[in-house]
Amino acid sequence: MNALSLDTVRLSKDEQSLVILDQTLLPGEVKYLRLSKGEEIWEAIYSLRVRGAPAIGVAAAYGIYLLSAQLDTEDMERFCAHFQKQKEYLDSARPTAVNLSWALRRMEGVLQRHRGTLGVEQMKKRLCQEAHAIREEDVAISRSIGQLGFSLLRPGDGILTHCNAGTLATAKYGTALAPVYIALEHGWKDLRVFCDETRPLLQGARLSAFEMCSAGVDTTLICDNMASYIMGRGEVDLVFVGCDRVAANGDFANKIGTSAVAILARHYGIPFYVCAPSSTIDLSIPSGEKIVIEERAPEEVTALWYARPMAPEGVKVRNPAFDVTHHGLVTGIITERGIAYPPFDRAFQQLGIAETEAEI
Amino acid sequence: MNALSLDTVRLSKDEQSLVILDQTLLPGEVKYLRLSKGEEIWEAIYSLRVRGAPAIGVAAAYGIYLLSAQLDTEDMERFCAHFQKQKEYLDSARPTAVNLSWALRRMEGVLQRHRGTLGVEQMKKRLCQEAHAIREEDVAISRSIGQLGFSLLRPGDGILTHCNAGTLATAKYGTALAPVYIALEHGWKDLRVFCDETRPLLQGARLSAFEMCSAGVDTTLICDNMASYIMGRGEVDLVFVGCDRVAANGDFANKIGTSAVAILARHYGIPFYVCAPSSTIDLSIPSGEKIVIEERAPEEVTALWYARPMAPEGVKVRNPAFDVTHHGLVTGIITERGIAYPPFDRAFQQLGIAETEAEI
Repeated sequence: MNALSLDTVRLSKDEQSLVILDQTLLPGEVKYLRLSKGEEIWEAIYSLRVRGAPAIGVAAAYGIYLLSAQLDTEDMERFCAHFQKQKEYLDSARPTAVNLSWALRRMEGVLQRHRGTLGVEQMKKRLCQEAHAIREEDVAISRSIGQLGFSLLRPGDGILTHCNAGTLATAKYGTALAPVYIALEHGWKDLRVFCDETRPLLQGARLSAFEMCSAGVDTTLICDNMASYIMGRGEVDLVFVGCDRVAANGDFANKIGTSAVAILARHYGIPFYVCAPSSTIDLSIPSGEKIVIEERAPEEVTALWYARPMAPEGVKVRNPAFDVTHHGLVTGIITERGIAYPPFDRAFQQLGIAETEAEI
Repeated sequence: MNALSLDTVRLSKDEQSLVILDQTLLPGEVKYLRLSKGEEIWEAIYSLRVRGAPAIGVAAAYGIYLLSAQLDTEDMERFCAHFQKQKEYLDSARPTAVNLSWALRRMEGVLQRHRGTLGVEQMKKRLCQEAHAIREEDVAISRSIGQLGFSLLRPGDGILTHCNAGTLATAKYGTALAPVYIALEHGWKDLRVFCDETRPLLQGARLSAFEMCSAGVDTTLICDNMASYIMGRGEVDLVFVGCDRVAANGDFANKIGTSAVAILARHYGIPFYVCAPSSTIDLSIPSGEKIVIEERAPEEVTALWYARPMAPEGVKVRNPAFDVTHHGLVTGIITERGIAYPPFDRAFQQLGIAETEAEI
């Protein structure tokens, strides 16, 4: 089985449920969940059953469509009020990735634009179309990022990645791993991918290594603290990572530990690329200092995966889920519209990424 | 219970066994093992039941005494041949830490110096004395390193440490954590210690966090990949790490991930100190490139601590147990004789650390 054939997130055929691959069970078990209640969808996002900034966006779009469509009314006022309430609820599941609120705002934009002209039933159909469009665009965006990233690769390159920004993190292909899928399409068989395991939730070990192995890629799993050793031996030619939110100056939030990878890459002179759908670029915040970092439960660090206790009872634990990497450490930001090089604010402008877009 | 009251490694009262605290069971269980067979002692070192460069040295000294003393002979030739064989066997348990071979060579030096004058029974007693001396010296050396390290601290400082170089890694006090124990003796209650969990074997989570918590220190456990985040927030004032072998130029091997911590500390402008008994300084090797890095079993990364599979079957895994940190990243090397500052080769000379000593 190739992970590329797995649907990360989609609408069920009867259009009554959101169907997600439960990523907390990978790599041991491939199991799909059908979700239709608000609490189920919120929990799936909060608990990382569906994760990865673009996939969260798609899940949120289908989610808000389903939850709003469940209200049986012909009164547009009531429908809009219900939509708002559900939107705020879903938006509270995770704070850092911009795609969650971006997708919800985009769906709200549809509502605002058409509330004067459409009836409730027609509006529901229009929202469903928009969610499908977000999903389809995500596939196209990922492919485009993959092709641009592929242009940076040479045969035999060693690529280091952190966390999972692969097909499981998007509707298909991924962002940071998309260049590898494109390389496979071109018949390249000799790329080498190093996956940081990415504590505490092991998305690198469980998801990236799973994806890459299943696609037949030469894949090596390392603990996060081994990246410096592997880089120091000259085994890494470039770093590709995904991101959850990029600020106007190019600072970006991504899975905790990404800033360390960037600092190491700079130390060893290794190019460091961020793969970012333009929807991830949030021009409304000037720098990374303004990005809210989600802090999660201590048990994820001390107990979640473990068969026996591995930390003393009562120890304080920090569990930031993300960190911010300074734009000065970034070689380039690969968007679906082209690769942005420093200074990033100007590059974003040249690529036609405008604030209004992030604020649809 | 304060971890400082636990004996990491000692000789049993009847002088028939090596008694070690099984560190693989911490923090869940405090259990001592009595070891007298060669295979048991080798396995305890290989499997990290006793670990930490200085503690391994003490275990090896008692081990070679016990194994050689088990031969019932009055023939010094036979005794010496037996000693050599047992020495080579124990020396093969782990390659990176110099203390294992250093302690065995020191014991062999006793044999060589006295083989012309002592009978076998007297020699056995002399070897036992030497092993006790190594242990007692280790306590004194650790205390001295602790006092010198303490001189660098200010009240309220945040200290980040990697792996475990505490009392559990030595006969008492430790190296990197010794300054904290000395600070406690001075009544300082407001130091803050951050413990990198230190994958794959979690010595930071299981041992350093356990030690520091048990001693009443404000202790925070983080995943290895969170150090950059914590440093970036200004919460770390200095880094103390232990080491397994220091080369003549100051390059040093320590637990995998140490080089990353050093690079991060440099990036954020945080002083980075290595705590090294002079026995750890190996002037016979000019630089870190000559240090052999132990590669351990993939299962330590993929399965050891886990209740369910967390990596795909068949993925390649790298598991270097150590890495080498370039001396250019080191602020100072704290030995029991004083703090060495760059250039380290000259500083070692000024501290009276000579090649012959490493080669006793």
